[in-house]
Amino acid sequence: MAPPMVRLSYNDIHKAIQASAPKIIKDFAPDLFIAIGGGGFIPARILRTFCKTTEDGKKRNIPIQAVGLTLYESLGGIEEQIGNEVVRVQWIDFSTVSDFCQTALTPQLGSKLKHGGLLGRRILVVDEVDDTRTTLVYTIRELQKDINKQLELVTDVAERERLREATKLAIFVVHNKLKPKAGEVPEGVQYFSAVDTPDVWLAYPWECEDDIDEHDALRVNNPKVENL
Amino acid sequence: MAPPMVRLSYNDIHKAIQASAPKIIKDFAPDLFIAIGGGGFIPARILRTFCKTTEDGKKRNIPIQAVGLTLYESLGGIEEQIGNEVVRVQWIDFSTVSDFCQTALTPQLGSKLKHGGLLGRRILVVDEVDDTRTTLVYTIRELQKDINKQLELVTDVAERERLREATKLAIFVVHNKLKPKAGEVPEGVQYFSAVDTPDVWLAYPWECEDDIDEHDALRVNNPKVENL
Repeated sequence: MAPPMVRLSYNDIHKAIQASAPKIIKDFAPDLFIAIGGGGFIPARILRTFCKTTEDGKKRNIPIQAVGLTLYESLGGIEEQIGNEVVRVQWIDFSTVSDFCQTALTPQLGSKLKHGGLLGRRILVVDEVDDTRTTLVYTIRELQKDINKQLELVTDVAERERLREATKLAIFVVHNKLKPKAGEVPEGVQYFSAVDTPDVWLAYPWECEDDIDEHDALRVNNPKVENL
Repeated sequence: MAPPMVRLSYNDIHKAIQASAPKIIKDFAPDLFIAIGGGGFIPARILRTFCKTTEDGKKRNIPIQAVGLTLYESLGGIEEQIGNEVVRVQWIDFSTVSDFCQTALTPQLGSKLKHGGLLGRRILVVDEVDDTRTTLVYTIRELQKDINKQLELVTDVAERERLREATKLAIFVVHNKLKPKAGEVPEGVQYFSAVDTPDVWLAYPWECEDDIDEHDALRVNNPKVENL
């Protein structure tokens, strides 16, 4: 039997993210978002609204880097990739992360930012849903490899260990499906989900090809995700 | 006097993009999106829903590459960049575009895709709003430079000219403000906007820090954008 479909409105998503932001700020205080595209683009952009940092009394946007990964999705002219294989469509652009750091550094942040862009940062990986967890675990593992490569370039041992300690990874998903996962969240990686759901079919508003108002209206008769 | 504020709901944006998609497909038929982040992330993800391509009877998602550019926005620890300066926060990851092409190529697409990722493609640059046009013109110019660099690597002259001809750029914005622009859309670049607006303050739903339902309710009493 097909799992039940739960329709979600844009405002549902907006509110779920809004409600999660204070905990994310309090427990993790991210200063870089990595959005997993396409699904993470919308949540990351919304979350940014609620996670502005303040510096010298001015509100600052947290930068978003996008990575494109595909698991279920189709790649242009390729056969569907089934199973656990994750294919990179885009990865972090370290040339601009570095440019960004060189441009952006203020004296007090200099030592924090000068090593390749990831070191010393509190990096929040954002996606819409944690289904089998495959893409999330892949992303964290690849980021850890990138961080380790950047750490190797730091010649001062004390500084390298300070940066290793200061660099943090966390995950935020709008929905976490409570089901067996293909991988574990690596140790030391904080995990935030706005809503935990049973293993239902989540019909996201941005996937609605028909009348979006009707999608929202049908949603009213949905069982609430929390009560499923 | 501050310009009037026009509140927009997520469904307004969804419907505006939905209504634009058939014309974009008919007149341009994009096969690669480049989303200008943060503003272009949400429109690009929504547009993808309505622009699926069909190949061998299967629906295919159009890949999205993200670029991060900042004009008005703040960069982490940097002073606000005022004026016409555009700062790259992220650019296209050509290593994965190429990987993508090598992985993705089917025999009939081989010659179309093998040269660096942009050649032979119909590239749609997506953003939320065309205000002064600075960021859009910057993006198109930089992409044209990248395309020219990739063309220089094609040794066969006839093939190079064929690819030059086949590579197309276009722009899609949800809102185009009818006002003097700091730059012109370069010749040969198609331009699509979902809604043309006067020079008003567009309050996007993803920027709403308060109650999103209230934002939507207040919107009902808005003058309609089309009637302003």
